[in-house]
Amino acid sequence: MVSYKAPLDDIRFCLYDLLGYDDRVTTLPGCEEATRDVVDAILEEGARFCENELLPLNQSGDSEGCHFDKGVVRTPKGFKEAYAAYRVAGWTGLAADPIYGGQGLPKTLEFLVQELICSTNMSFGMYPGLSHGAYNALETWGSDDLKARTLPHLADGRWAGTMCLTEPHCGTDLGLIHTRAEPLEGQRYGITGQKIFISAGEHDLTENILHLVLARLPDAPSGTRGISLFLVPKFLLGESGDDLGQRNGVSCGSIEEKMGIKASSTCVMNFDGAEGYLVGEPHGGMKAMFTMMNAARLGVGIQGLGLAETAYQSAVAYARERRQGRSLAGPAEPQQKADPIIVHPDVRKNLMTMRALNEGSRALAIWVGMELDVAERHPDMTRRQEADDFVALMTPVIKAFCTDHGFDAATRAQQIYGGHGYIKEQGIEQLVRDARITQIYEGTNGIQALDLVGRKLGQNMGRLLRRFFHPVHGFIEENQTDPTLAIYVLPLAKAFSRLQQATAWVAQQGLRDPEEAGAAASDYLRLFALVALAYVWARTAKLCLAKQEGDSGGFYRAKINTADFYMARILPESNALFQQIMAGKKPLMAMAADDF
Amino acid sequence: MVSYKAPLDDIRFCLYDLLGYDDRVTTLPGCEEATRDVVDAILEEGARFCENELLPLNQSGDSEGCHFDKGVVRTPKGFKEAYAAYRVAGWTGLAADPIYGGQGLPKTLEFLVQELICSTNMSFGMYPGLSHGAYNALETWGSDDLKARTLPHLADGRWAGTMCLTEPHCGTDLGLIHTRAEPLEGQRYGITGQKIFISAGEHDLTENILHLVLARLPDAPSGTRGISLFLVPKFLLGESGDDLGQRNGVSCGSIEEKMGIKASSTCVMNFDGAEGYLVGEPHGGMKAMFTMMNAARLGVGIQGLGLAETAYQSAVAYARERRQGRSLAGPAEPQQKADPIIVHPDVRKNLMTMRALNEGSRALAIWVGMELDVAERHPDMTRRQEADDFVALMTPVIKAFCTDHGFDAATRAQQIYGGHGYIKEQGIEQLVRDARITQIYEGTNGIQALDLVGRKLGQNMGRLLRRFFHPVHGFIEENQTDPTLAIYVLPLAKAFSRLQQATAWVAQQGLRDPEEAGAAASDYLRLFALVALAYVWARTAKLCLAKQEGDSGGFYRAKINTADFYMARILPESNALFQQIMAGKKPLMAMAADDF
Repeated sequence: MVSYKAPLDDIRFCLYDLLGYDDRVTTLPGCEEATRDVVDAILEEGARFCENELLPLNQSGDSEGCHFDKGVVRTPKGFKEAYAAYRVAGWTGLAADPIYGGQGLPKTLEFLVQELICSTNMSFGMYPGLSHGAYNALETWGSDDLKARTLPHLADGRWAGTMCLTEPHCGTDLGLIHTRAEPLEGQRYGITGQKIFISAGEHDLTENILHLVLARLPDAPSGTRGISLFLVPKFLLGESGDDLGQRNGVSCGSIEEKMGIKASSTCVMNFDGAEGYLVGEPHGGMKAMFTMMNAARLGVGIQGLGLAETAYQSAVAYARERRQGRSLAGPAEPQQKADPIIVHPDVRKNLMTMRALNEGSRALAIWVGMELDVAERHPDMTRRQEADDFVALMTPVIKAFCTDHGFDAATRAQQIYGGHGYIKEQGIEQLVRDARITQIYEGTNGIQALDLVGRKLGQNMGRLLRRFFHPVHGFIEENQTDPTLAIYVLPLAKAFSRLQQATAWVAQQGLRDPEEAGAAASDYLRLFALVALAYVWARTAKLCLAKQEGDSGGFYRAKINTADFYMARILPESNALFQQIMAGKKPLMAMAADDF
Repeated sequence: MVSYKAPLDDIRFCLYDLLGYDDRVTTLPGCEEATRDVVDAILEEGARFCENELLPLNQSGDSEGCHFDKGVVRTPKGFKEAYAAYRVAGWTGLAADPIYGGQGLPKTLEFLVQELICSTNMSFGMYPGLSHGAYNALETWGSDDLKARTLPHLADGRWAGTMCLTEPHCGTDLGLIHTRAEPLEGQRYGITGQKIFISAGEHDLTENILHLVLARLPDAPSGTRGISLFLVPKFLLGESGDDLGQRNGVSCGSIEEKMGIKASSTCVMNFDGAEGYLVGEPHGGMKAMFTMMNAARLGVGIQGLGLAETAYQSAVAYARERRQGRSLAGPAEPQQKADPIIVHPDVRKNLMTMRALNEGSRALAIWVGMELDVAERHPDMTRRQEADDFVALMTPVIKAFCTDHGFDAATRAQQIYGGHGYIKEQGIEQLVRDARITQIYEGTNGIQALDLVGRKLGQNMGRLLRRFFHPVHGFIEENQTDPTLAIYVLPLAKAFSRLQQATAWVAQQGLRDPEEAGAAASDYLRLFALVALAYVWARTAKLCLAKQEGDSGGFYRAKINTADFYMARILPESNALFQQIMAGKKPLMAMAADDF
């Protein structure tokens, strides 16, 4: 069985000690009430809910999967009740606008709760997660009328939402979309086409489902510039806003049999002249879609982190309990027939790798979460822009790095379980299967790397990049002469210098030949992430060195040990990545396609 | 669907061009008839069988799985017929001794056929694979009487075999085994205990199953020095050798529900005073067991390679066919709505990584396979010893590196398939699930690394190591002044020098503190493998540079491109591994176990 307790101590450390939550978030207009007390109370309540309600349904949900029968999808046993409890507890509207019945809390908090949900039941989390994306898109791009008629129902969780983008012949390349939107009278459109891989496309958790669908108007230019976004409800919106109208012409044709997240329905959705309403401008669908997509990408990164945390905790519990062989340093527990496997260096290497990347990713993700709030609420527009830049820059990094880590962590945990980890009953192999999709959906991690290298690096003459490079540079400058910090600051400085060189090289080469940037992209994103984590860990170490003495110093000493490990045994990968980037495109583009 | 054609051209290149099969193997006593013609004919027949009989059952076997009912195990539909055809075609006795009805062909050939089987149906391959291990153990350690009564049936495939080692409380640490062997009259023993994770422990493919069981005699010393090996047949051996006696006291209690290899039965085996016969010396079970285990470890490495080949070929086929987006260099096929994704650098990076590691691993594995034959048959005992040393050194490297690669390759192929790769129907996610066990069983890859570092490095004053270091050193010496080879020889020389330094460090530190060797082990094994592949690729490039001109040069030009890729974009990892090794144990052993 997996072991999990919400890592509230580490979350609090990130929020309050490392990232200055109070000064950065509680001071924002509308966040005044989100004080430490409130945040702590919500986190504790969230932890209880996830540990007690969601975790017990995770493995049974995987075994049972979703059921499909003539267009109707039934979620696994217990999901309906859990969702009802989730709604009643107010989790669906945590960060929603109070105008629409939400609690108006900071997005940071929503980020944190998302991690707990993904740690305990990623499949369950898909349903409210998608609704949340739909809320954001409608709030940003919907007409006042649409907002009034939909947002209160999304905020209170009575209704759910989806993102309908992919078609059988196109996923990454949305310019190829076929789905058509024919204008009807009264600002209504008839939507016709087929969408696939639609998460939460049909289910039995809510009274209605609001599909946000990409389609082409009759006069649309070809490619992505001719795509518009439409709201297509499962049941038409009733007159009063509260009652449901008749069933719309949208239906679920089948659900997919997948490697994992089996309790999350993945649907083929057929639109047969279904009634829809334009969201945003005609042909402005890609822009509106990216409102959902960017939030979804961060959410997927959090899924990776959430799974990695459960993998880590389970592996630690197993490594403490399972006895095989003796410590290489001599029997650690001579009265027992064998020592717990946590004594073995290779087991520890796996545990420390998971730990260092979990805690580092968490700090980075929370930093991004806070900047989301700043970008939305700060009174100073310059500061808002800075925060928005930072979030835009970091979104592909969080999505790709945290999900690669989530899969890697699940795999390492499974390795520690040995043969037992391959057996379904233990629940560890499920983490591996569930984690695998996070590297693929909402833009594969290869696409994230292209987004970073091809769009974010060059945007506004490198302005986005400075939002990250400046603080790193400042920290190095400020601390490079402190001998107690040398073991953190020196490796950080070296890796940062490699990142700067690689950045200049990629920018230069990429201008001359975009394939050079493409060939560097994945390695560059990983190098970027490793430097970001090195910065997080160097700051963490500096903070914790001052607090490690005394009885309550255990938490801080563990942080310092983990920072030491990160610098010595993980960060050297940056060296290899740098060389691989600088080797350029030729070694991978030289071969003729027919020779493969 | 997966795509697969047996890579016969590459196998022939490795055998005849790169590794001198004719001089090395056909000249061995008893191998005179295994000429190129014979080898080629067998490979072609093997390819046909695997592509036409085994591949079509791979996905259905996964969906259906094995059935268990009151001690009886039924394999999935079609397996029984496929196994019968496999037997009739003579594959079970390919390398078995003609005295026992085998064909007496070189082990090299068996290695090659194993790859084809694992590429097309790894689950199926488990059944004859285990029988093969039992054959080896009985041939080496069994009494003449036991051999005469069992080996002909294993060679002709009427009977199968198993390895019964693991118990619920011990896998890696076999010293903890509880299963007892009580002496009965007439050199018989009563075996009592429970074994778990027994592959092919029970099934419906053969008339009888021979279990090779580790157990303790009453007077056994504790730990691994008190373990003996017993043969426990499912049906007692009849008088004539051909007929079956009565059912023995061994039965299958249940089969496991696993992440993958679902068509391979993984059994709980209960021994209730079952009749058994000693194989080898009393308390000499570990030694006898390692005869099976070492062959099994090489076999598992080949499983990794086999899966990686199917992953690669499927990904290439998909990348040529799936169209998304445009080449970054401008439309490659402007008349189409989008270009095939093989134009994208990141897709190519994944394909080239798979290709370079597949072909490199294959060459290394075939080299080891040939040395197995030399070790067994060469008239010069010194040459035999050299070959045996080389095989012993390389066994953990092949097991761990090829299986890590197999899983990685399956994952990369799945990534190229995008969302479609997550759907069961495509067959790619099965490769990922199947590959995962190869990193775990027959000694986890962490255990392989300890075997390399803790046993093989120091054995006979580093004699084993010299079997690999000498040829590498010689090649570098011989070619370092050739400017056309500089792009291969220089990186090889650098990486080799790192490996030599790391070896000295690990040996020195390990003597002082075994935990230092343990902390280095996994990274050291990977560094070792990367250097071994660099050597293979440098030799390959040298050979192919001379053959690349003209119409038939395509194959050789592709080899050169792949060698270039390996040196430029894979080998730099050796840099990071070196630093990680040299960072020592402290960063991973410093944390108190309670602080995790």
